[in-house]
Amino acid sequence: MKNILFIMCDQLRWDYLSCYGHPHLHTPNIDWLAENGVRFDRAYIQSPVCGPSRACIYTGRYQTTLGVRHNGYPVRLDELGLGDYLAEVGVKTAVVGKTDLHVDPVTAKRLGVDLSVENRKLLGIEDFDEDSGNHPTKMLRQRGEHFQYNDYLRQQGYEGENPWHTYANSTVDEAGNVLDGWYNRHAKHPANIRAEHSQTPYTTNRAIDFLQTVGDQPWCLHVGYIKPHWPYVAPAPYHNMYSTAHMLPANRTEAERDNPHHPVYEGFLRYTPGEGFNREEIRETVIPVYMGLVKQVDDEIGRLLGWLQENGLLENTMIVFTSDHGDYLGDHWLTDKYWFHEEVIRVPLIIYDPSPAADVTRGTVCDELVESIDLVPTFVEYSGGTPSVERLEGRSLLPLLHGANPADWREYVICEEDYSPITVRTHLDLDVDDARATMIRTKRWKYIVHERFRSELYDMDNDPQERHDLGEDPAYEAVRRELHEQLFRWFRRRKLRLTRTHAFTRIRSQPGWVEETMGVMIGYW
Amino acid sequence: MKNILFIMCDQLRWDYLSCYGHPHLHTPNIDWLAENGVRFDRAYIQSPVCGPSRACIYTGRYQTTLGVRHNGYPVRLDELGLGDYLAEVGVKTAVVGKTDLHVDPVTAKRLGVDLSVENRKLLGIEDFDEDSGNHPTKMLRQRGEHFQYNDYLRQQGYEGENPWHTYANSTVDEAGNVLDGWYNRHAKHPANIRAEHSQTPYTTNRAIDFLQTVGDQPWCLHVGYIKPHWPYVAPAPYHNMYSTAHMLPANRTEAERDNPHHPVYEGFLRYTPGEGFNREEIRETVIPVYMGLVKQVDDEIGRLLGWLQENGLLENTMIVFTSDHGDYLGDHWLTDKYWFHEEVIRVPLIIYDPSPAADVTRGTVCDELVESIDLVPTFVEYSGGTPSVERLEGRSLLPLLHGANPADWREYVICEEDYSPITVRTHLDLDVDDARATMIRTKRWKYIVHERFRSELYDMDNDPQERHDLGEDPAYEAVRRELHEQLFRWFRRRKLRLTRTHAFTRIRSQPGWVEETMGVMIGYW
Repeated sequence: MKNILFIMCDQLRWDYLSCYGHPHLHTPNIDWLAENGVRFDRAYIQSPVCGPSRACIYTGRYQTTLGVRHNGYPVRLDELGLGDYLAEVGVKTAVVGKTDLHVDPVTAKRLGVDLSVENRKLLGIEDFDEDSGNHPTKMLRQRGEHFQYNDYLRQQGYEGENPWHTYANSTVDEAGNVLDGWYNRHAKHPANIRAEHSQTPYTTNRAIDFLQTVGDQPWCLHVGYIKPHWPYVAPAPYHNMYSTAHMLPANRTEAERDNPHHPVYEGFLRYTPGEGFNREEIRETVIPVYMGLVKQVDDEIGRLLGWLQENGLLENTMIVFTSDHGDYLGDHWLTDKYWFHEEVIRVPLIIYDPSPAADVTRGTVCDELVESIDLVPTFVEYSGGTPSVERLEGRSLLPLLHGANPADWREYVICEEDYSPITVRTHLDLDVDDARATMIRTKRWKYIVHERFRSELYDMDNDPQERHDLGEDPAYEAVRRELHEQLFRWFRRRKLRLTRTHAFTRIRSQPGWVEETMGVMIGYW
Repeated sequence: MKNILFIMCDQLRWDYLSCYGHPHLHTPNIDWLAENGVRFDRAYIQSPVCGPSRACIYTGRYQTTLGVRHNGYPVRLDELGLGDYLAEVGVKTAVVGKTDLHVDPVTAKRLGVDLSVENRKLLGIEDFDEDSGNHPTKMLRQRGEHFQYNDYLRQQGYEGENPWHTYANSTVDEAGNVLDGWYNRHAKHPANIRAEHSQTPYTTNRAIDFLQTVGDQPWCLHVGYIKPHWPYVAPAPYHNMYSTAHMLPANRTEAERDNPHHPVYEGFLRYTPGEGFNREEIRETVIPVYMGLVKQVDDEIGRLLGWLQENGLLENTMIVFTSDHGDYLGDHWLTDKYWFHEEVIRVPLIIYDPSPAADVTRGTVCDELVESIDLVPTFVEYSGGTPSVERLEGRSLLPLLHGANPADWREYVICEEDYSPITVRTHLDLDVDDARATMIRTKRWKYIVHERFRSELYDMDNDPQERHDLGEDPAYEAVRRELHEQLFRWFRRRKLRLTRTHAFTRIRSQPGWVEETMGVMIGYW
């Protein structure tokens, strides 16, 4: 029996783990996975936003193909996903924590599809305790939301309309005042909750609940830790476990802020109405807390791995650790995510494959370009299936995990951003269809195509901090042209032709098939 | 009350009508529409194959967007079409004759959608008497097909398993032998059926049946005449109404056959296992019959127009006449369709708009580039609706019909072909995903991008017969580059983002919306 434990953090940067080189933030449990599996050093997500990035991950398809452009933009009703593919090979798939998936309610209503059933198992993933993770009180009231974590908090004695907000995501100062966690200045205080009741341990608890009840069927459990996603609120002792001495330096220059190199970057500088991370005090308040939240996730992964070990599951469970995107934390003077810098689009990806075939790669680092959409085909192949050629746009990582070096491995990764639903579009006064951009990144270059502006180009070997936009430099015209052509070719080959299999197409195109099968005789004299 | 009569022939070339300049084939009824409406001289379909071309027409979307790649490749379950849009403005849409539409049965089954209901009203078009038009006996047996035209034939005394084949699409020689209409050598004899019982008059009868019963609701009736599509079988007197003296000369040279300029063209030369139209005797046998079939359609349109006039409907009914693609008939040594020469992708398009606003254009010719996907938005606007910005990729022709000259009218049309399901792919030994090509045509140029071969370029002003492929001529590199870039831009802008409206996106991107509506506070200190 082969199982899969698919752990994904939300908004975790690649460089805030000790196995990826962080000098002060020690994450021994995640590091254990790297020591016993493969650590991918060039792993990229397909959209720098939770919802679309996750839709791509769970379907194995790019954002253009899916049409999921932002958080809360539903997946089309006929898409298939992780759980659908694994069900074909007898694997039960469930989620604890975040997926951020929604089904298209308009079409469901038109076609009389029972949405309550579809939502319970969207993309074939059973909702064991799905939780988008973010429940501001306004949203709770507006949507009439009910979620199990609030029930749990009340059982533990945290009362009120929305203990998610008033306890788990508020802090409490020395005088006992409860402070709104949405304001970053409050981050330095501990959360108004005991660590064991905060969201991260709760998610671990629920994962173990699932594992204790799953039975004999092979399973794929997706554990979607919500943290270190904002609100930046950590319970004691994690809230002050780190100090400014432990922070990575900011990747930003006065020059890029004062003379923005590109209109869209200028638009993103204005993305938040508040101060964002503009002042050093803000970075110094938030980042140690962000680090504490990562440390708590690592501790909880330790607990989960311990449970697997005690129950003899480390020998037959593939374990994946990754993130849906990073966090600017003030780098390039930016806040949150939504754009293409490495701080956001590069993610940690570690895969522990228990198979003997993977022994040759244990503890190694893979520097091939991989994409988050590779996970579904990897899981399908690991579980004994054949990844769908009609739908899946990612590629199984099993060959890389088993020490092969495929000569035709991909030469680039793609990331797409549609900023039409955020204020950047408004600032730039663009039409909805013009507020989108596509990035292609090879090992050496990063190239971004816009609809209404010139393209951008970065030399990632010689300018890893992305400070020199070569988009207008005549010396790089040939480089830009080649990347432009690769991107055009990529657009032409999206897998939108879903309603017939390639196998049928191959049969249909055999000489004589139309005559023999259909009785249609074209061009006979 | 505003109605729409949307007439579409199958496989009718643009140049086989007297209003488009045919010197011998007089089509006075279709010409009447041109004299009282607008004749579009640069109308192009979006795929040179029935099924995809029609899927594009009925949805107002391009083939890449839809993913409908060939006949029998179903439409995705969440697509909307002509009837759906018109229902929103109170118009009842129905079809008599061909649509060639199918819904995705796999997804329907998975989601528990009642296919019998969906198929009865696919894309919102009520099946009054839908008939794909082509019922070889093998297909009939294999699919267990039942269609009303065979019932009708039996009622008229044409007995047997498949009177469609043995009567309507077989011929009878002087000795009384019944000859299989699939073989083109039999085309010179009359069909084994009286003209009044053949498919074209039957379709007219059914159209009148619909109009007599529709009642007071505004309606859009789609009349899909199957002819002059093969089998090339015409009833007397149409079978010998024309002779070789009335044929247009073949557009082909020995040189293009003996030294094919491009691998894909060479592949298409081998498309039919039979002789196709290679010999002059074949053209001389088939083309006069093809002309007779067109003449019969014109006569039947005359009958239909007469009925509208008698019933006072010419004053409030928009009448559209077009075709889903043309027919090579041996031009360029090719048979049938499936490729990008003007003989196939250019179609007749005539629109009679009864509105007084259209009086200024009556009897005129419009030489703007128009696409078949423009029809749905035209119908929506004519019926008082607003074409969907999220889905519709065509553009309403009403401004052109009302004498406006929009400064931003399109500069190119697009046509796409996926030849993976036909033998051309097999001949060229291509993977399924490589057997596709995209054409962009401006008023001056035609440019074709392939996946595995070099691009093609034609100067349509100086080489209207498409005999000189400039795809490798260094003198045209700048032209090719510009068209290439236009095509890239086109690919980037396909309307795949369906599950939220643009109106919602505009609201969501207003500064403060996220804070006020959702309670999410990003970047506040």
